[in-house]
Amino acid sequence: MAHKKVAVLVAGSWGTALSRVLADNGHRVLLWTRNAAQADEINRLRRNEKFLAGAEIPEGITATTDMAEAVSDAEAVLFVSPSAAMRDVARQAAAYIGQDALVIHATKGFETDSLKRMSTVLSEELGRSEQRIVVLSGPSHAEEVIRRHPTTIVVAAKEIVCAESAQDLFMNSSYFRVYTNPDYVGVETAGAIKNIIALGAGLSDGLGYGDNAKAALITRGLAEIARLGEAMGANTLTFAGLAGVGDLIVTCTSQHSRNWRAGSMLAQGLPLDEVLQRMGMVVEGVRTTKSAYVLARQHGVEMPITDQLYAVLFEGRPPEQAVESLMGRVKTHEIEEVASEASRGRTLR
Amino acid sequence: MAHKKVAVLVAGSWGTALSRVLADNGHRVLLWTRNAAQADEINRLRRNEKFLAGAEIPEGITATTDMAEAVSDAEAVLFVSPSAAMRDVARQAAAYIGQDALVIHATKGFETDSLKRMSTVLSEELGRSEQRIVVLSGPSHAEEVIRRHPTTIVVAAKEIVCAESAQDLFMNSSYFRVYTNPDYVGVETAGAIKNIIALGAGLSDGLGYGDNAKAALITRGLAEIARLGEAMGANTLTFAGLAGVGDLIVTCTSQHSRNWRAGSMLAQGLPLDEVLQRMGMVVEGVRTTKSAYVLARQHGVEMPITDQLYAVLFEGRPPEQAVESLMGRVKTHEIEEVASEASRGRTLR
Repeated sequence: MAHKKVAVLVAGSWGTALSRVLADNGHRVLLWTRNAAQADEINRLRRNEKFLAGAEIPEGITATTDMAEAVSDAEAVLFVSPSAAMRDVARQAAAYIGQDALVIHATKGFETDSLKRMSTVLSEELGRSEQRIVVLSGPSHAEEVIRRHPTTIVVAAKEIVCAESAQDLFMNSSYFRVYTNPDYVGVETAGAIKNIIALGAGLSDGLGYGDNAKAALITRGLAEIARLGEAMGANTLTFAGLAGVGDLIVTCTSQHSRNWRAGSMLAQGLPLDEVLQRMGMVVEGVRTTKSAYVLARQHGVEMPITDQLYAVLFEGRPPEQAVESLMGRVKTHEIEEVASEASRGRTLR
Repeated sequence: MAHKKVAVLVAGSWGTALSRVLADNGHRVLLWTRNAAQADEINRLRRNEKFLAGAEIPEGITATTDMAEAVSDAEAVLFVSPSAAMRDVARQAAAYIGQDALVIHATKGFETDSLKRMSTVLSEELGRSEQRIVVLSGPSHAEEVIRRHPTTIVVAAKEIVCAESAQDLFMNSSYFRVYTNPDYVGVETAGAIKNIIALGAGLSDGLGYGDNAKAALITRGLAEIARLGEAMGANTLTFAGLAGVGDLIVTCTSQHSRNWRAGSMLAQGLPLDEVLQRMGMVVEGVRTTKSAYVLARQHGVEMPITDQLYAVLFEGRPPEQAVESLMGRVKTHEIEEVASEASRGRTLR
């Protein structure tokens, strides 16, 4: 495989970890950041302490604050900025991205207020079809990838050749395994919404409900985010894959997850304001609960867990009452229709 | 709802916990055991120490060693014996089960050697159609159910009225939520095979590979047991539900799981014989790996994780080499075919 110039925007923990994979594969990585001191730290000390404490940054990675230097002639551009900054970063990069460059993003979340998916934001700012933009997602703590622990992710694009190019770029037979999926909407939606369920898992654990309750919450949560995803154009099966259940498992069972911790504090009766103050940083699941609550209504999708979390977060409903409401709902069935001929021919691989 | 006489065979931990749910719902429970001392302990001391240490057995449960007393006139019969004893217990009960009695089982595993599903075994011994037998499964530690922690399970039967009768029997609005599913083959197969993946999760954790690797193993493991399930007649979506991913999460993330512990000992280089000796009890996942390995060949299904576990367990392959083989396989895609019209109309609920 030919080695390529790849631009990575920006130098957060996930951007830096993915840069290591690219550098390990022999590519020349230009890692863009607004912060000159951070660029200097990466280039001279081979460190990015704020985002990946203790990790060494390989020589194949060069940090820069110059967008033209990073993106011009790059054969691939990877966007990993926070969702709130995506539009602005894309706008700055747009002029330098070549027509044939591969565009990939690995950002989880919707745009605030507009509730647009990240590939829609990129499509609008870069003037290219969403179908040629690759979404990278899956169960992947950056702290493990930077240490080369075995990790498996998915790259999704409607134009499957784009996904395959991204697969070639990232696949590393010793620690980084990459699957393709044509359902970029599903991969993107699953990644954006899953933090709601992590918040709920923290709430359940905080109430002392045990493993049965948490597993049920994750499973039923998966079903309801899949319903919303399907209404937004996703393939339900994607939610049973790495970007769905895989990412959900990593997020809901790690006590390091910010969303889980926020949920467990709420269970102890702390009001949301105080939880957010104590956390001292963004808790994505809180914003996402609001987004999903609105999206569920726009698309006419029933999301009982999201509704109860919304009531706990924003309407002061006691967490115990929320759980009681979930357990006491009318009896229901797990699969909407009887297994039929229509269900043949699709296989989880 | 009218209160019923329900027979539960036998008085292990899961049988006893499910008896509590039935008793809480006002039903009269006859709990059958071969062991007179155990029956006496339950009836006099309201305890079942060997199987559920510390838990109190409610008054609505009567233990008996008399099969005729337990089963005659029972409106429902619940089989929860170990898979190896199922045929024998069913044969003993057959003569006393009324034509109209509801038959349910909550046993995970295949029959040894024949590799038959439990509902097939029951069908053969009771002389009734498999389609009228209900399978009960889902993420449910007995130790939590007996303490009335919130739990959510699924009851499956091809004749959906049978599943609905079981739902009425078990549904408890304060802690036990029951979903129906027509895909009894899927529910049964998922429960039987999932212990393989728990074994693999223990192996991965024992090798120190981290959360990314474990989440990937669970997700890809789910995909391959779903493929086998589908070849055996199951609906793939069932594997994304409570009996699939839900049960898998409970099993793979609990360090109390015997399968997980056995896997983590194997990772430390102990040979299988010694692991089994140290465990001192049945490790279902070991037997199930052999069953699935045979079933995969019978049905022509690719199961790379099962194959590697089989090699580690029975062919002395070093665990690190097994993981390397899994990471180094040819690149692949996550969903077999592009999202198409055929994929519409099926919804996770």
